[in-house]
Amino acid sequence: MTEPTGLRASSDGIGGRLVAGVDVGGTKVAALVVDDHGVVAGRAVRPMDGGHGPASVAPVVGAVHAALRAASASPAALSAVGVGVPGQVDPAEGIVRVATNLGWTDIRLGELIADAFGAPSAIENDARVAAAGLVDHEVAGGARSLAYVAIGTGIGAGIVLNGRLHRGDRGMAGEIGHVIADPAGVVCRCGQRGCLETIASGPFVARAAADAIAEGAISTLAGIDPLTAEAVYDAARDGDDLAIRITQTAGRALARAIAGLVLTCDLERVLLGGGVSAAGEVFFAPIQAELAELRRQSSLVAELLPLGSVRLLPPHFDAVAWGGVALARSLVKDSTPTTTP
Amino acid sequence: MTEPTGLRASSDGIGGRLVAGVDVGGTKVAALVVDDHGVVAGRAVRPMDGGHGPASVAPVVGAVHAALRAASASPAALSAVGVGVPGQVDPAEGIVRVATNLGWTDIRLGELIADAFGAPSAIENDARVAAAGLVDHEVAGGARSLAYVAIGTGIGAGIVLNGRLHRGDRGMAGEIGHVIADPAGVVCRCGQRGCLETIASGPFVARAAADAIAEGAISTLAGIDPLTAEAVYDAARDGDDLAIRITQTAGRALARAIAGLVLTCDLERVLLGGGVSAAGEVFFAPIQAELAELRRQSSLVAELLPLGSVRLLPPHFDAVAWGGVALARSLVKDSTPTTTP
Repeated sequence: MTEPTGLRASSDGIGGRLVAGVDVGGTKVAALVVDDHGVVAGRAVRPMDGGHGPASVAPVVGAVHAALRAASASPAALSAVGVGVPGQVDPAEGIVRVATNLGWTDIRLGELIADAFGAPSAIENDARVAAAGLVDHEVAGGARSLAYVAIGTGIGAGIVLNGRLHRGDRGMAGEIGHVIADPAGVVCRCGQRGCLETIASGPFVARAAADAIAEGAISTLAGIDPLTAEAVYDAARDGDDLAIRITQTAGRALARAIAGLVLTCDLERVLLGGGVSAAGEVFFAPIQAELAELRRQSSLVAELLPLGSVRLLPPHFDAVAWGGVALARSLVKDSTPTTTP
Repeated sequence: MTEPTGLRASSDGIGGRLVAGVDVGGTKVAALVVDDHGVVAGRAVRPMDGGHGPASVAPVVGAVHAALRAASASPAALSAVGVGVPGQVDPAEGIVRVATNLGWTDIRLGELIADAFGAPSAIENDARVAAAGLVDHEVAGGARSLAYVAIGTGIGAGIVLNGRLHRGDRGMAGEIGHVIADPAGVVCRCGQRGCLETIASGPFVARAAADAIAEGAISTLAGIDPLTAEAVYDAARDGDDLAIRITQTAGRALARAIAGLVLTCDLERVLLGGGVSAAGEVFFAPIQAELAELRRQSSLVAELLPLGSVRLLPPHFDAVAWGGVALARSLVKDSTPTTTP
């Protein structure tokens, strides 16, 4: 077990002025190398090969090396690396406990990264690291309590309360994708019926369209195989009735879930990101419409979710990688538990 | 405006060894007077007359006086008073902003109580004060993250995270009664459709039975007027099919909402109280059955809500009044904002 041994980069004056933030996704990994003025010095994206075990960490290391090359910098210039991973993470030990979409179980990612770059590293769940990074960003508008909701292959939230990431008793806070939105709905990958993910996650949006077409619905999406959520949102943008119906259903469910999150935690702002949200206005408009309707119905909702409190992040915002940058900076600034080489 | 001026009782050695905790309800107010060993010295319950304005505070003062008499103690023996109120509270100013069921708006309850007893006082929302008090109680089983969910005229939660009450950005955290449980449901008092309260709060459980009977359902409840939730749970206990159906629907919705709360906040324990929960096993069994089903379906739910993590408080537990006792003690122990006479 690697004990936190403090901050070589800052305390010894060893290491550089750059930090790296990494977004490990199910299909690709994105790395940012940022200088101490917050300027991006280099960025790189690499495909994840989807292998199992420690070897599958190679693309993560490769993406950081590529971002360093893009920055014309050597690994010695890195003072810390922060990584967001889609799964259950033990930040204190630097271990990814379970990352289903990556096929990872008990991967000592923190140690592997620290060894690869000779710099302290820290890891965190992707939605949580993004939320923690967003709190100091201008998109948060100064809010000290906020959530980042990622809508992609799955749906999850990172929750920041009073300026601090809320991890929860078992580090699992923010699992809103498995809050039941429709008790009569379809069965989720988790086993429950009608989870939010079964209505609004990418795979289920695509499946709803495919199922409707298989049952005879008329749609411009007929014949597209495999059908993706991106294609469904594209078709909705182009006026396809089936696609509009499915994406509006998803938007309404997301709006209610966002309202539920704010009613439960009393957050000042909710920021939406993730792959599905990259569809932009056609994704966001039904959410805004339903929030407007709930505000009209209920003064409680109007008070807790005023206009402008729920926002869509720009599609190429790299929220998770920037969260990794913030996490890396925290290693340089303070004594957050860290894995050192 | 009364500024916090510190702790006369402790700093000057003035005042007594007793503290009072008060539960202000829609129909009655309960006061406990407790000694510094945590032993109840006196308890009293008084009806709330439901009037508006400062005069309607009289029963609150009256209940504390009655509890002091039951303890054979004078007001001078009180070192602090803590009060839980069903509504939106500004604890720093000691003001009840809105308490709909009491008809209170901007009542300076903290000052009124402090003046009446010559002791520092503090006020808080009822579900929140109960949750804060429960965290150190044996029913919490040592959990540092928990929720107290009150099911009565309304439904609300108090949430404690890492041992501290989570109030939220606007002091409104825990409004789970207005999370939408059934988008196709009936219209709530708040204006939304299908809030949890429309399925599981006392008035709506009673209304579901009354509506079904009006539509011709056969039930032993026919002819009871006014029909109460207590009567519906009594009938369910006695095997009435309609009452069983309605209370099981309420229990399933509560179980899903509890699971949603834990998936969102990652809490170790959830404790159930409030007037409707006093029905006991017939109230709790459908909740347990649905939780068992969700655990069976989903390993995520099984991990986050293991057996025993959701518990029913004993019917006469006085959770809010005990929360008031804990709040009063915090005034004596530390410099929590307080209203002094």
